[in-house]
Amino acid sequence: MQFNEIIENLKQGQSGVVDFKIKNNPVILAAASLDKAKVNDISFLDNNSPLNLRNLLEISKASALLLPANDNYIVEMTKKIQVDWILLKEPKIAFAETLEFLYPSNIESEGIHKSAVIGTNVKISPGVSIGANVYIGDNTEIGAGTVVHAGVVVYKNVSIGAKNLIHANSVIHSGSTLGDECVINANAVIGGEGFGFVPTSNGWKKMPQVGIVILKNKVEVGSGSTIDRPSVGETIIGEDTKIDNLVQIGHGVTTGKSCAMAAQVGIAGGAQIGDGVILAGQVGVSNRVKIGDRVIASSKTGIVSNVEAGKVVSGFPALPNKLWLRCSANFKKLPEIAKAVRQLDRRNSR
Amino acid sequence: MQFNEIIENLKQGQSGVVDFKIKNNPVILAAASLDKAKVNDISFLDNNSPLNLRNLLEISKASALLLPANDNYIVEMTKKIQVDWILLKEPKIAFAETLEFLYPSNIESEGIHKSAVIGTNVKISPGVSIGANVYIGDNTEIGAGTVVHAGVVVYKNVSIGAKNLIHANSVIHSGSTLGDECVINANAVIGGEGFGFVPTSNGWKKMPQVGIVILKNKVEVGSGSTIDRPSVGETIIGEDTKIDNLVQIGHGVTTGKSCAMAAQVGIAGGAQIGDGVILAGQVGVSNRVKIGDRVIASSKTGIVSNVEAGKVVSGFPALPNKLWLRCSANFKKLPEIAKAVRQLDRRNSR
Amino acid sequence: MQFNEIIENLKQGQSGVVDFKIKNNPVILAAASLDKAKVNDISFLDNNSPLNLRNLLEISKASALLLPANDNYIVEMTKKIQVDWILLKEPKIAFAETLEFLYPSNIESEGIHKSAVIGTNVKISPGVSIGANVYIGDNTEIGAGTVVHAGVVVYKNVSIGAKNLIHANSVIHSGSTLGDECVINANAVIGGEGFGFVPTSNGWKKMPQVGIVILKNKVEVGSGSTIDRPSVGETIIGEDTKIDNLVQIGHGVTTGKSCAMAAQVGIAGGAQIGDGVILAGQVGVSNRVKIGDRVIASSKTGIVSNVEAGKVVSGFPALPNKLWLRCSANFKKLPEIAKAVRQLDRRNSR
Repeated sequence: MQFNEIIENLKQGQSGVVDFKIKNNPVILAAASLDKAKVNDISFLDNNSPLNLRNLLEISKASALLLPANDNYIVEMTKKIQVDWILLKEPKIAFAETLEFLYPSNIESEGIHKSAVIGTNVKISPGVSIGANVYIGDNTEIGAGTVVHAGVVVYKNVSIGAKNLIHANSVIHSGSTLGDECVINANAVIGGEGFGFVPTSNGWKKMPQVGIVILKNKVEVGSGSTIDRPSVGETIIGEDTKIDNLVQIGHGVTTGKSCAMAAQVGIAGGAQIGDGVILAGQVGVSNRVKIGDRVIASSKTGIVSNVEAGKVVSGFPALPNKLWLRCSANFKKLPEIAKAVRQLDRRNSR
Repeated sequence: MQFNEIIENLKQGQSGVVDFKIKNNPVILAAASLDKAKVNDISFLDNNSPLNLRNLLEISKASALLLPANDNYIVEMTKKIQVDWILLKEPKIAFAETLEFLYPSNIESEGIHKSAVIGTNVKISPGVSIGANVYIGDNTEIGAGTVVHAGVVVYKNVSIGAKNLIHANSVIHSGSTLGDECVINANAVIGGEGFGFVPTSNGWKKMPQVGIVILKNKVEVGSGSTIDRPSVGETIIGEDTKIDNLVQIGHGVTTGKSCAMAAQVGIAGGAQIGDGVILAGQVGVSNRVKIGDRVIASSKTGIVSNVEAGKVVSGFPALPNKLWLRCSANFKKLPEIAKAVRQLDRRNSR
Repeated sequence: MQFNEIIENLKQGQSGVVDFKIKNNPVILAAASLDKAKVNDISFLDNNSPLNLRNLLEISKASALLLPANDNYIVEMTKKIQVDWILLKEPKIAFAETLEFLYPSNIESEGIHKSAVIGTNVKISPGVSIGANVYIGDNTEIGAGTVVHAGVVVYKNVSIGAKNLIHANSVIHSGSTLGDECVINANAVIGGEGFGFVPTSNGWKKMPQVGIVILKNKVEVGSGSTIDRPSVGETIIGEDTKIDNLVQIGHGVTTGKSCAMAAQVGIAGGAQIGDGVILAGQVGVSNRVKIGDRVIASSKTGIVSNVEAGKVVSGFPALPNKLWLRCSANFKKLPEIAKAVRQLDRRNSR
């Protein structure tokens, strides 16, 4: 693809082309980060990039650059650099779109592999691809254009919408409902039984888990992540919510739209999470906690009580982020503080 | 099922029926939480429920209620409410039993699917169900009534007892021994090799892991959880111990009876855990630590040294829970404390 | 195997035989820990073992012992004990080697199981074993002596070297490259798409993940662990690096040689990790952080900024280990410290 074609493509997209220079109009063969780029690669610098990345601009071997338009330093630099460039409102979105042009994901339906085992009364829409050694349980429905990779197991009575991508060896339990355009990554488990046991004098009594899991449209679930069904009712993951690898979502959790949960997050049963909530890696959320819209929790935060919309929280138990930063800064001075207190005490008790 | 039938069934169970009112004797079609219940649903309120749940009683649309007998406020309320109810010593157990009546899990043996691959010298008892694309290694035994779902891989020389439920795509390694009535959830791994490497001048030297994993009766293992075998000897999970999703149990760990380990708990090699221990989500336990009977660790606790029986611990490194609560309360005052110390210091050094 | 044969075998190995006593020359049938050993077992005591293990020497029922040569107390004791022994520079390595003699892992090629599904243009070298219900995608290569267990899914265009051991139901995505002598444990996922989404006014925009994962020689990946591919470029795991269970390695991470990452470690995207780095259980590493060679992080550490080579760090956010130990010791005195400060304040404000 030549550089001018990329410009034309980006103009159709969401990244906001502001200006560009076509001088060499190089053939673009690949995309790469600034430090790894070679001749005929395209690379990008995001808005507000740190200095160590900005400094790479002058030494990068990339043949074309996607650059932030709202950055005077960069705009000045474009006057000097030899390679072709595009100034954009959203250079990261431009890079994502460019990757789509350069590396189209040609998901062609391969039909139903002869080794797949399909139950009775299964409804498979046109254009569905079902890989080798897949098992689909009775009464399950799979919408148009969905791709089910090798080794996937879908239990009975599951409803899977259109254009889903279900990766190898993942498991979807009975009663689960997936919307359209979801991605289930490899070895994820959707709709396993919630962890519900009642103590009795005779050991644990199991609380039957007869509820279901619902994934709305455009939900993505990372490799090895697990989303449990509840005893009654539903576990619901809201539209466009993205879940990274090895995340645990307990029974009866509900999340709003467009949340992001990074790897190894754990959300205990019944937690209610608003729209646009971002939980960084290894965050934990306790049973039945309510988290308002647009809350952000930094890595390893433990949220044990409700959090109001818009708050940024950190630490365990979670504190407002700015307070936590100050507390942490003082935590590392604790030996000095303790020593000062001992000295004051001694002096005062004379 | 009609309401009076549920009463009769509960009388046979463990929940302790104290009193009831049959007036409408509704048909009960489903079970639901108080806030989600519709007409013809049954719902429950547990002992010592918080106010926000208790307040739902008056507005719930449920047609029948399971209520705590030991609660004067509730007993008074039963005189006023229109719907039928049962007063119970253990309403949560009653709800679990009611779910069993309403949603019987009809696990019927489906025999051995023709796509399953069974090794040589495998002993399969009557009533065993083996799903599609399962692999069973040589010399393995499977007890009566056990269900092995699609895609499961059982290596050689495994002993599986009666009435186990082994969910899709889980893996059981050579030498593992499962008792009766265990549940292995999807994508769990039982008996993988422990993480044992000895540093040498030439890199890591692998310590062979030739031990085995033993799960006693009624053990449940969550989706994606991993239980490793040791270099020599056994990793043992005690009877009735319940393990949630994405839990790691290291090589050579032993646990007692009726423990509960919530999601994402990690227990390092050689730890010895007593009976009735409860570890909340994301708890970590260090190598070879001994934890006494009935210890409770709250979420994210890091247990790095032995804990005596009956203790409740929190934080990292673990402290007695009450102490930790007070320390945490003061942690968030650290900026003030540090400021006060600086001021005192200044004043005193004048 | 008789005891004298073990001595002869160990002399060929890396453990440094210093002295030995052959008196009974017992038949050795098995290996065990000191406390569990029975007659005809061999056991060992490592260098610098704690007292509770040393005390087991006198009561162990083992028929032969591997003991540290650099320990005067032990050397004295060898003069008194009845059983045969070997003094070694590295008794733990000797034990590892002895396990190899006693329990040889006879991995014999079983050829390609007839239920395996092999794509087009797949190159399979001699001596490769492919288990039941395996799927191998088009254009993939598998080197000599590699064993692929039942249920594994390998996507298209994967390169797998020689003598790899790939356990059941693991998944290897397109473009991944494995060196020689790697071990992929059950249900691990290599090369899943990185978690890359760009916020837009219209929800999340996916950053295509078109990079690849490279595992160098002798890499081991634990059960259920996930290693993601990046948007562009490579995620690289260095030679001889060992990864435990349920570990998450984000997109674009690079690690050096001979690192060890314990269970449930999470490494966020773009982190750069040196040689010989050891991360204990549940450690988290933030985006793009650089960790120098031979850094050690104790359990649950959260590394949010660069760490210089050779440092030992602990806590969250990570501090030098010794400082953190002192801060933690003072954390549990916070209630007293706060009280002392209040009293001083009161006295001073009189």
